[in-house]
Amino acid sequence: MKIGIIGLGLIGGSIALDLKEQGQEVVGISRRQETCEIAVKQNVVDKASRDFSILKNTDMVFICTPIESIIPTLKNIIPFLNSETIVTDVGSVKSSIVYDCSKLWHNFIGGHPMAGTAQQGIEAVQRNLFVNAPYVLTPIDSNPPQAIDKLEHIVQFLHSRIYKCTPEAHDQAVAWISHLPVMISTALISACISEDNQEVLELAKHLASSGFRDTSRVGGGNPELGVMMAKYNRKQLLNSLDKYSQQLELIREQIEQENWHNLGLILTKNKQVRPDFL
Amino acid sequence: MKIGIIGLGLIGGSIALDLKEQGQEVVGISRRQETCEIAVKQNVVDKASRDFSILKNTDMVFICTPIESIIPTLKNIIPFLNSETIVTDVGSVKSSIVYDCSKLWHNFIGGHPMAGTAQQGIEAVQRNLFVNAPYVLTPIDSNPPQAIDKLEHIVQFLHSRIYKCTPEAHDQAVAWISHLPVMISTALISACISEDNQEVLELAKHLASSGFRDTSRVGGGNPELGVMMAKYNRKQLLNSLDKYSQQLELIREQIEQENWHNLGLILTKNKQVRPDFL
Repeated sequence: MKIGIIGLGLIGGSIALDLKEQGQEVVGISRRQETCEIAVKQNVVDKASRDFSILKNTDMVFICTPIESIIPTLKNIIPFLNSETIVTDVGSVKSSIVYDCSKLWHNFIGGHPMAGTAQQGIEAVQRNLFVNAPYVLTPIDSNPPQAIDKLEHIVQFLHSRIYKCTPEAHDQAVAWISHLPVMISTALISACISEDNQEVLELAKHLASSGFRDTSRVGGGNPELGVMMAKYNRKQLLNSLDKYSQQLELIREQIEQENWHNLGLILTKNKQVRPDFL
Repeated sequence: MKIGIIGLGLIGGSIALDLKEQGQEVVGISRRQETCEIAVKQNVVDKASRDFSILKNTDMVFICTPIESIIPTLKNIIPFLNSETIVTDVGSVKSSIVYDCSKLWHNFIGGHPMAGTAQQGIEAVQRNLFVNAPYVLTPIDSNPPQAIDKLEHIVQFLHSRIYKCTPEAHDQAVAWISHLPVMISTALISACISEDNQEVLELAKHLASSGFRDTSRVGGGNPELGVMMAKYNRKQLLNSLDKYSQQLELIREQIEQENWHNLGLILTKNKQVRPDFL
């Protein structure tokens, strides 16, 4: 098959590399000529260009751009696609992408490979990045079944754990385990620095250890990524935040009422179920 | 000096070991005869006993029991102390301990060495456990200055970073960086498992990765420890929880109102200040 990869960063480049090694013909698109040259030189793709015309006769196209560019990119490439070309994306939210894209292109099927490293860009590209990582596909009713099968067939080359669900189920699940943690974690930092007794604040900074470090990690991460999560997964994140506040209030009530038995039951239950998520 | 250590677990045993190596005479108390024997055999202490009479003529006593046993233990040992004997503890909260203990014994000065490992008990004892770790002393106005100096002199043998503050400042600081994180972290687990769509819940379990793992770690820890924090540091923890909820609500409002600029400012600020706590 001829496969197009748009965006040769960590995700796009690593997908390209694995698919090329599996014998597919892979062409890449980058906005930067330098990235195109590196991608070809390092055998990440067979050919690369800044020009969408390289996508002619592709069977499948992965849009691996930042979220906000997915819909505009799809619009731009449509003139170069065959009617049978399957288009997918790698965005970390799905509802806000999938329905719009499917209206533009009937063979658009949303995807979300959940792997990554701290590094970014073509230099960070690596083999087998997606092995054993989750790869969620979010087909909708209007997608032709054979297009879904074909996409799944190609994704299997990455040796990910493939899950199929609705865009909404995906977005609610990632709101729980990825986007909500960022917001509650950043609120911890906000709360600590709201302390107006300078002696206490300085002491807190000196005494903070692994508990604070781990709980605040994702909340002290990339701000653009945090805003993006909230912007594109707003509805499901607000739902998670509301449920979270209810649970936190329940815990607060046990402490207020000195109901140590109930607080102990909550903590014990959570210790028991946490391994199910790991 | 003759130093008594009551409770030969990880903390008590490790203090004993370091002080004995510094040439102090160290006697240990454990409720279990077997622990006494191991402590002597492994040179953690010079002598050990289940009997408080071994504390006769000690210059200083470290009470290294669980928090709920500190006050009863102090009452039990008073008949065996000289009037000059300094007594300290290693409890992780201070206000609820220090004032009561100081009424019982004028030379009681609260302490909190902030080191530890996942292991517990005499088998986990290690040299230099407290090197570069914070060790908070919480003297109060009624403590004789020379007693504070003497305690500080001995604690310096552990090569910790010594901080001196009021019991209240200590408790508010640890509420921020230790006890609040446990509650907001456990509420994350509570919230996730409150999801009543089974497909979403199962998907969340499969998709959860390092963000969920780190943010939920302390909330999925030892339930008894969590209850203890809340019980003995209730007032300061409730204060932290209230301030936290305000900050979380502020973040929620930005998302609700789609004020991405303000959300970005909050996330950027928190990314900037987090390293001050590490």
